[in-house]
Amino acid sequence: MFSINWDSAVNNELNELLRVTAGQAYSALEKTLSKRESGKIGFMDLVFREKEISRVKKLAAKTAKEFDTLIVLGIGGSSLGGKTINAALMNNFDYNRKKVFYADNVDPDYFHELISSLDLKKTAFNVISKSGSTAETMAQFLVVYDLLCKKLGKEEAVKRIIMTTDPKSGALRPLEKSIGFETLEIPQNVGGRFSVLSDVGLFPSAFSGVDVDSLIKGAASVLETGTGKDMEKNPVLKYSLLKYLYCQKGFMNSVMMPYSTKLFELSAWYVQLWAESLGKKGMGQTPIPAIGATDQHSQLQLFMEGPRDKFITFIGVENSRNKTEIPCFEQEIDAFDYLSGHTMQELIRCEMLSTQRALFENGVPSVRIELPELNAENVGALFMFFEMAVAITGDLMEIDAFNQPGVELSKKYTYQMMGRKGY
Amino acid sequence: MFSINWDSAVNNELNELLRVTAGQAYSALEKTLSKRESGKIGFMDLVFREKEISRVKKLAAKTAKEFDTLIVLGIGGSSLGGKTINAALMNNFDYNRKKVFYADNVDPDYFHELISSLDLKKTAFNVISKSGSTAETMAQFLVVYDLLCKKLGKEEAVKRIIMTTDPKSGALRPLEKSIGFETLEIPQNVGGRFSVLSDVGLFPSAFSGVDVDSLIKGAASVLETGTGKDMEKNPVLKYSLLKYLYCQKGFMNSVMMPYSTKLFELSAWYVQLWAESLGKKGMGQTPIPAIGATDQHSQLQLFMEGPRDKFITFIGVENSRNKTEIPCFEQEIDAFDYLSGHTMQELIRCEMLSTQRALFENGVPSVRIELPELNAENVGALFMFFEMAVAITGDLMEIDAFNQPGVELSKKYTYQMMGRKGY
Repeated sequence: MFSINWDSAVNNELNELLRVTAGQAYSALEKTLSKRESGKIGFMDLVFREKEISRVKKLAAKTAKEFDTLIVLGIGGSSLGGKTINAALMNNFDYNRKKVFYADNVDPDYFHELISSLDLKKTAFNVISKSGSTAETMAQFLVVYDLLCKKLGKEEAVKRIIMTTDPKSGALRPLEKSIGFETLEIPQNVGGRFSVLSDVGLFPSAFSGVDVDSLIKGAASVLETGTGKDMEKNPVLKYSLLKYLYCQKGFMNSVMMPYSTKLFELSAWYVQLWAESLGKKGMGQTPIPAIGATDQHSQLQLFMEGPRDKFITFIGVENSRNKTEIPCFEQEIDAFDYLSGHTMQELIRCEMLSTQRALFENGVPSVRIELPELNAENVGALFMFFEMAVAITGDLMEIDAFNQPGVELSKKYTYQMMGRKGY
Repeated sequence: MFSINWDSAVNNELNELLRVTAGQAYSALEKTLSKRESGKIGFMDLVFREKEISRVKKLAAKTAKEFDTLIVLGIGGSSLGGKTINAALMNNFDYNRKKVFYADNVDPDYFHELISSLDLKKTAFNVISKSGSTAETMAQFLVVYDLLCKKLGKEEAVKRIIMTTDPKSGALRPLEKSIGFETLEIPQNVGGRFSVLSDVGLFPSAFSGVDVDSLIKGAASVLETGTGKDMEKNPVLKYSLLKYLYCQKGFMNSVMMPYSTKLFELSAWYVQLWAESLGKKGMGQTPIPAIGATDQHSQLQLFMEGPRDKFITFIGVENSRNKTEIPCFEQEIDAFDYLSGHTMQELIRCEMLSTQRALFENGVPSVRIELPELNAENVGALFMFFEMAVAITGDLMEIDAFNQPGVELSKKYTYQMMGRKGY
């Protein structure tokens, strides 16, 4: 697992505050754990699905044997987790490996360009929707299924579509029998934004060659630590309480800033998790995605001198696979010859530490998560870490972190405009 | 040019407020225009560089004749604009066209993966840094130049590198003579985040086949409208004042939400422009990137029911190139058969209008920019629109929108850690 450096967020005053409010955090953790025990929430138990995971791996291996490319038709929680794993763990410039694309919108031009570029004979599609009523995903499915039937015939079309949906209910489950689609499952008590470690995230990951057992192993190790009642030994609890306390102090915006291009999708995944879980009753921490060192040339000015309302989570990678040495230049040039002899690994690390220090001196609090390396185990650990943290933070805020009532009104108006019966 | 719908931001009270404060906006516009006249700021005059643009087009055509791929080495303002143009206007699933990649970080793994995947014989590199002292870009340059020299010899290495830098000063300009790199220019009075319509954004765009004259034409049309003194005929002025007034009312976060996957990089470009220009003196509007319809399944819950501190700019595309029809399914299924017979174009449009209406009813203000279509002219227009708006908003806030003093401290610490002389 990873370690966390708290020095830029916890001074003496905060330490005292953490001590005084520790009881609140313990009782929030209790509430979260009792929801788990009652079966209301299932994300923590995704690490114990040996049988299901084994089925996913087999189906992924079979699919990868027959097809070169997998298109995931899914949106929000049905795509963000898989995208994160893919970007973090695979070499996206290796054009010989299995390709996975996430079609997570109904932009007609973008979708048309994607679909037109495919060799349909070599492509499979993973339709992910728990309810089977997600308008965007269903529109994509209708386009793709029709196209496959017309170009390759129904039998070949059915072979190319794998559904991931509710184990029993919803509009897609009956198609498993009536049409014969291979169908994976999202446990009923696991919501979209908590579903990355279910079949939702695991199937496309396994297809592209990710070691899904290691993902699960990393998540399981956080689960073990994260259920402990000693604040100093439970970083999930400390992180949750700390962000809650800073939010109370007016640090309402929560920046996720990994110093790694390969983790940029993690920021987007985190945005959904934080926004949709906590943005309720006029409260919530507004999540802001950032990437270091890139955003030092974009958002850093605002973080340093703008409104003092941001709490930052840095993520550093201690050992990259390739250090990438910076060679000498043929001339002596003051402006950049100090770089020679160092590595990009050193440079990006110095930039992270320097930025954190500069922000700290300007009164902007942050914590720094240190990944020993960027691998499946640590990515799995990050998922479980933030999922547990958002659940506990929700209980601290007295907010139900597991619903999303605010998205219904917009859906209702869309159904009306599109002429759905009963709306 | 595009039109703007103000109905979800301007009620009677706001209309009155706009009337009363119009004088402030006019005087902010005056200040901006006087900075232009004195030569302090140059971004508005980028549309009048006929000779330079013609040189860029020629060099791009020559480069495209010799090479298949262009790697842009640049960060922040040196990459965000070009990335936006590339994503918006090119078919990124057309594998036969000229490829452009933006290496905008020093993530050692990502950079190694990118560089290792290239056929160096067929690849050119565009190094973009005004000062020649941008640590990340210079580190990349050193790696690439050394690699090219070793693999292909110095003569071939030099042929493959095009510099874009200050016309006179900086560390890179002397290399034009001493080594012989082709060198383009960033006018001295144009800062990175305002440089997309200079050689910075135009060269990679022209290389990949974008009609750069149309980009410029669109920007010029906004410049003409945006300098007018009648608020009702000048949407740039109205937009600036409106966002300023909402900011004063506590709407401190500014969401950019195009309903178009192809415009997702515009949100990132806007984030830099807004964050770095206005995040000063404890003030600023925190920009938040979003994409419709995707973020209805991620951030919408927070926008609807979280803190009432967000002002949203929607961007819609009225006519996509491909409507993408949604066909019927072989069974009648309530959950999605209402979609059949519509197009994706209709669906994404209904979703935008429905989301805007739901937010409005929940007290979240927004405006909606309507692009007749997504083409070079309209993308150029969007750049000039937001650049002028941020300049005027800066003058309304009494902030210098053209500096970024807050990023220096972090740089200083990095130089110290990396052992740069004099730090």
